[in-house]
Amino acid sequence: MPPLSENRIVRLLQSLYPATKLSLKKGIGDDAAVILPPNAREYWLVTSDMLLEDIDFRREWATPRELGCKSVAVNLSDLAAMGARPRFYTVSLALPQDISERWILDFYRGLAEVGDAKGACLIGGDLSSSRSGILISITAFGESLKRRVLYRVGGKPGDLLYVTGVLGASAAGLKILQSGCIRPRSMLQKRAVHAHRNPEPRCAAGLWLAQSGLVHCMMDLSDGLSADLPRMCAESGVGAEIDASRIPAFLESSRWNFDPLDLALNGGEDYELLFAVSRAKAAVLEKKYPADLPKITRIGEMTFGSAIWLHNSGLNRRRLPKGGFDHFESCVRRRPGMSGLKPGPT
Amino acid sequence: MPPLSENRIVRLLQSLYPATKLSLKKGIGDDAAVILPPNAREYWLVTSDMLLEDIDFRREWATPRELGCKSVAVNLSDLAAMGARPRFYTVSLALPQDISERWILDFYRGLAEVGDAKGACLIGGDLSSSRSGILISITAFGESLKRRVLYRVGGKPGDLLYVTGVLGASAAGLKILQSGCIRPRSMLQKRAVHAHRNPEPRCAAGLWLAQSGLVHCMMDLSDGLSADLPRMCAESGVGAEIDASRIPAFLESSRWNFDPLDLALNGGEDYELLFAVSRAKAAVLEKKYPADLPKITRIGEMTFGSAIWLHNSGLNRRRLPKGGFDHFESCVRRRPGMSGLKPGPT
Repeated sequence: MPPLSENRIVRLLQSLYPATKLSLKKGIGDDAAVILPPNAREYWLVTSDMLLEDIDFRREWATPRELGCKSVAVNLSDLAAMGARPRFYTVSLALPQDISERWILDFYRGLAEVGDAKGACLIGGDLSSSRSGILISITAFGESLKRRVLYRVGGKPGDLLYVTGVLGASAAGLKILQSGCIRPRSMLQKRAVHAHRNPEPRCAAGLWLAQSGLVHCMMDLSDGLSADLPRMCAESGVGAEIDASRIPAFLESSRWNFDPLDLALNGGEDYELLFAVSRAKAAVLEKKYPADLPKITRIGEMTFGSAIWLHNSGLNRRRLPKGGFDHFESCVRRRPGMSGLKPGPT
Repeated sequence: MPPLSENRIVRLLQSLYPATKLSLKKGIGDDAAVILPPNAREYWLVTSDMLLEDIDFRREWATPRELGCKSVAVNLSDLAAMGARPRFYTVSLALPQDISERWILDFYRGLAEVGDAKGACLIGGDLSSSRSGILISITAFGESLKRRVLYRVGGKPGDLLYVTGVLGASAAGLKILQSGCIRPRSMLQKRAVHAHRNPEPRCAAGLWLAQSGLVHCMMDLSDGLSADLPRMCAESGVGAEIDASRIPAFLESSRWNFDPLDLALNGGEDYELLFAVSRAKAAVLEKKYPADLPKITRIGEMTFGSAIWLHNSGLNRRRLPKGGFDHFESCVRRRPGMSGLKPGPT
């Protein structure tokens, strides 16, 4: 039996529980499920994400407010990835006995801060005690606009691949925290740690891209480009070629002897958007894309086949090694409290 | 500062995050949140429940299939409590490394078994590894019928109180399991353990009661009558008088030297419905209530004030001591793996 992996389990569940109901437009396997309630004008999108202490975060590395912000942000990022507008969320929380009421209220304040900013409102959840650290489980609901949502499927060979923002800053911030520097002083370190603690869900960019009618497929980068790009390619039935020199890596991380390309490929927790545009429409998209949204960068293209290639410079290319974060692989862990970031491609 | 309790935190959150959006009919504090998507014909109801190993269940006390069944059942029970029809659910799962693929598939089979039987379909979720036991977090979605849903609020002094089914069988089953008898042989013990492992969400009864137009308020009994009844009374702004001799307790548990009334009041995990009907309409309800639904029993009435009284026999009455299960109280735990059932009223 092949080893357990998140991808394998998701594929198994997809085959066992296909989206058969008329009102269910998309079930397991994308960033969010898509529902069409009877007579509703818009699709409703549903996504769930869990954050576990010492796996996804360390209590001492963020304030309760920051943890609240991040918990809701990573869920809203899944809605952004489909072009949906955040509307509601539920929070289930299991807490150890040493958590104070102040902590709980600060945590909820953080949730509401990001929720309010993005138009989503807390509607309920569950509370429990925990004997093993803080457990946060959020389910977020979004609404489409004109039923225009983007899936992971839809990319075609020849489509150009883009990402929003910068990749690898969050991973650099995590490495700084892991090194014991919890309250960084330099502006640059602060920026990296902020990217890790306070990821910004790309809701406005996701909505614009979905509404533009120019994008074929989209997802958010939560586990690292090297883990997420193959997922989008597999759903679309294509391969890809990525140009390493084009990846908007967080170059400043080289100052701390990190490899910016490694972090951009394998770091994870960027919560930027990855999307594909037909070659014919790429110029229009680049021209129309609003200047006040996070910058977009073309990093490569989709190809026939299924292989993912990384071009380093000129004619030198190699297979993109699978890095990134699998939430379920038994031997490779690299979130806080675990074995540190995996070595990148060498 | 008063001690942390589930009720207190929920009240705080209710005041901090009121249901202000037009499309949000009911926010924090009921069995489920109630949403009206723009242009939709029906309300959508959302509820979240978490189950944690060694707090809410023990792995060796149920098969993975049974655990899957129960996990979804307790969520669908919250939808039943509002009279909604189950439609979809998401499952976030954190699993320790020693869990096999077979275990995971059996667990999902259990989920689907109850989901399918009640009309709800798995649409997504999250997977993670866990360093501290199995964590299950489910969010379930239901749909109203003709927008007729029942809340905890709405009861009036003089209303008669009813429950469905039998109370305390699940708690007796838990005690049997806690005594070390994991595979009971006698029919009666099997029945009690089955009630604990395989609670039946009262979806059909909840829907009928909501559609009848005869019921003022309703909730499900998850934490025990002594914990849940005060919640419904507080929401409705009333007190209550309960007749101990009328409570449909699982009398057979006295054979094992358990106190059936204690288990019915304080046991929890019955997942039966508690509801209030105006005195004038009670006879009509009792006459019309379909014979093929779980039996209903009148157990008392709502009163002016806020006190909850328990009549034992004749004129002898006493305050209903708060028992039941608070998911957050720091010193009192009585789920599996904890300090056993709290002593009941004596």
